[in-house]
Amino acid sequence: MKIGILGGGQLARMMALAAYPLNIQTICIDPNKDVCASDVTKVHQLNYDDHAGIMNAFQDVDVVTIETENIPLSCAIQMATQKPFYPSLKALEFTQDRLLEKNFLQSLNIPVAPFIELKCENDLYDFLQTHHVVVLKTRRFGYDGKGQIRIDDASKVADAWQILKEQSLIVEKVIAFKQEFSLIAVKNIDGECRYYPLVHNVHQHGILHSSEVSNVHSDLQLKAQLYAEKIFKSLDYVGVITIEMFYDGHELIVNELAPRVHNSGHWTIEGAVTSQFENHVRAICGLPLGETSNIGYAYMWNGVGKMPETASCLSVPGVYYHSYNKAERANRKLGHVTLIADHLEDFNGNKKTLLQNIHDSLNRSP
Amino acid sequence: MKIGILGGGQLARMMALAAYPLNIQTICIDPNKDVCASDVTKVHQLNYDDHAGIMNAFQDVDVVTIETENIPLSCAIQMATQKPFYPSLKALEFTQDRLLEKNFLQSLNIPVAPFIELKCENDLYDFLQTHHVVVLKTRRFGYDGKGQIRIDDASKVADAWQILKEQSLIVEKVIAFKQEFSLIAVKNIDGECRYYPLVHNVHQHGILHSSEVSNVHSDLQLKAQLYAEKIFKSLDYVGVITIEMFYDGHELIVNELAPRVHNSGHWTIEGAVTSQFENHVRAICGLPLGETSNIGYAYMWNGVGKMPETASCLSVPGVYYHSYNKAERANRKLGHVTLIADHLEDFNGNKKTLLQNIHDSLNRSP
Repeated sequence: MKIGILGGGQLARMMALAAYPLNIQTICIDPNKDVCASDVTKVHQLNYDDHAGIMNAFQDVDVVTIETENIPLSCAIQMATQKPFYPSLKALEFTQDRLLEKNFLQSLNIPVAPFIELKCENDLYDFLQTHHVVVLKTRRFGYDGKGQIRIDDASKVADAWQILKEQSLIVEKVIAFKQEFSLIAVKNIDGECRYYPLVHNVHQHGILHSSEVSNVHSDLQLKAQLYAEKIFKSLDYVGVITIEMFYDGHELIVNELAPRVHNSGHWTIEGAVTSQFENHVRAICGLPLGETSNIGYAYMWNGVGKMPETASCLSVPGVYYHSYNKAERANRKLGHVTLIADHLEDFNGNKKTLLQNIHDSLNRSP
Repeated sequence: MKIGILGGGQLARMMALAAYPLNIQTICIDPNKDVCASDVTKVHQLNYDDHAGIMNAFQDVDVVTIETENIPLSCAIQMATQKPFYPSLKALEFTQDRLLEKNFLQSLNIPVAPFIELKCENDLYDFLQTHHVVVLKTRRFGYDGKGQIRIDDASKVADAWQILKEQSLIVEKVIAFKQEFSLIAVKNIDGECRYYPLVHNVHQHGILHSSEVSNVHSDLQLKAQLYAEKIFKSLDYVGVITIEMFYDGHELIVNELAPRVHNSGHWTIEGAVTSQFENHVRAICGLPLGETSNIGYAYMWNGVGKMPETASCLSVPGVYYHSYNKAERANRKLGHVTLIADHLEDFNGNKKTLLQNIHDSLNRSP
C-alpha cells in the first residue's frame, strides 16, 4: 500500500517513519527544495497547482492525505477526483478560512470566541468597544501566530488595520483563558473513533512551546470528545484531527481545528500506546486503530530556532530526542524532546533537570 | 552524524529507522540486490571484498557497525583502520567461528556445552558414545539452524559426516534444556552498560519462533548480566550484544553470541523504554544509553516464510505489526508482530486471540 502526502515537512517525515513497519510506503509533494521528509521518503518538488505533475507522481498511490491545511483547495479537489482523499475536502476548506471554520463550529453548537467578519475599520472599533481585548486575524494562511495582531486599545486600531487591511479579516474577542488544551482524535474508514487524553499546551510568541498530557477532570475530556464526534460526523472525516481549545474555568472554547496530525501530539510517539502518526496511517489505510491511552506522564518540549545538544537531553532518564534535520532559523520548528515517566515524582524531577539541561545547552553553544 | 552499516537487511532497516529521530544518518553496504534496508536508507550493492568501493561509500561516515557477524574479517579489519569500528573486531572474529567462540567463553569461565573440535569421523563416534545426543556444527557461517545435524545414534554418524566433512566442524553435547533465554545487553563508548530483561525464546526448525519477556528469578538475570560484563570487558566491546543461553534448571549455559542487535530483541521497539536499535545507535555514537526496562508484558511472534494479514493482527489490542517488505520465501524472516499489555490477564487473553488470528490468516490466504 502507498500513501501520497501533500507536504514534505516534519509531519510527513514522522508519518513516513510510522508507515514503514506496516509495510505502507509514502511519497510526498512539496513546492520547497530539500524538505525534511526527503531524508526518509521520496519527495517530488512540485507546485501545488501542477495537478498533472502531482497526479503523475501519485499514480500508484492508494490514498492521498495532507500534512498541512494550507494546500490550495483546487489541488485537493483534483486529487479527490482520482484517489480517496483524507481527511476530507470540507475539513480542508473550513480550516483554510477562519470565518468558515467558526461558522461551521457554531453550526454544530460548539463554543467559539465571539467574532465578526471585518468589512471596514469602523467594524473593528465597534467590536473593540464591546470586547475590550481583541485579536485581528487574517482569514487565510495563518499559522504559528502569523497574520495576527492583538489590540487592547482604540489607538492601535489604525496601525493594525493598515498592516492587514489588504487581506480578508476577522476579529475575535481574546479569551481570558486559564489553560490551553488540545484534543487529538482519530476516526478510521470503518467509523471507529479514538481519542487521546487532553494535552495542556503552552505557547510562546504564538508558537507551541510545550505540551503536557493533562490530568483533567473526565468531564472536560468527554466534552472535548463530544466536539470531535460532532465534527467527525458532520465532515465525513477519516484520519487524525486536532482541536485546539481555550479553557476559561467554565467552558472549553474552540480556538481552531487542524485537519491533521499536530505538534501537540508528538508526545504520542513514545507516550501513548499508538502514536498519532501510526493511527493516522492506520485510519486512512483501512486498518483498525490502536489504543490512544498514555503510558505514563508525558511532556514535550519544542525545539524552535535552535536545538539543544542530543547528549545533554538524553542524559536525563525517560527522554527521547527528535531532530527533523532542518537548518537553524529563527522561529522554525527544528525538532522536539519528549519526557516520559511512570511516577509523578520522577516526572517532575526529570522535567526540571531536562529543562535546565536544555537551557544550559542553548546558552552554551553560540 | 552518520553510521556506515555492513549489511542491509531488516536489522539495518530498523537501526536506520531508530537513528533518524536522533539526526543520525545511515548508509549500508550489502552484496545482495534490493535488500530491505533500501526502503528507508541508502544501500550500496558491493561485495565485502571490495574494500576500496566500501571505503568510498563510507567516506563521510563517522562510525562503522555491522548487522551480521558473517562479514569477512578482512573487510572489518580494513574498515577499522579508517574509522571507529563497533562492536569490536575480536567479537566478530570469535562469533564467526564456533570453536573460537567456545574457547573464548571457556576462558572467561562462562559455561558452555561440552564440545570438541572434530578432526575425523572417529572423534565423532567417541564423542557420541560419551554424550549420547550430540549436534554436529560447521565452525563457520551457520545461522538459523543451518550447517547443523543432530545425531542421537551411531548409525547416523556416517551420513552426517559425509554431508559436512568438507567443512571445519565441532561437535557439541545437546543440552536437555528446560528453557532457552537470551540476554540483550549494551555498552556505550563511555563504558555505561545496560541490560534488557531476559527473554524466553522458542525455536522451530532452528529458527526463532517467538520471544517473550520472562519473569525469571533475579538470580538468573544477574548471572546472565555477569556473563555480559565479562564479555564486554574482555572484548573492549561497544554496542548491543546478544547472549543466547540454555537453562537446564540449574545453570545458564551459553549457546552462542551475536555481536549485534537480535531478533529476540525486536519486542524492545514498543516493549522497552528504549529499543535495542536506538540503544545500539546511541552506544556507538557516543550518546548516553536509554533505559532498558520493559514497560509491560511483551511477546514477539516471528513472521517466517509468510506474514499474516495486517488488519487481522492489529484488531487485537496492544499489537504492533512490523513488515520488512521482503518477498515471501520458505524459512525467510519477513516481519514480526509484537504484543504488549499492562496486565497479565489481558496479555494472556490477547496473546491467545492474536495467535488464533495469525493462524486463521495464514490458513485463509493461499
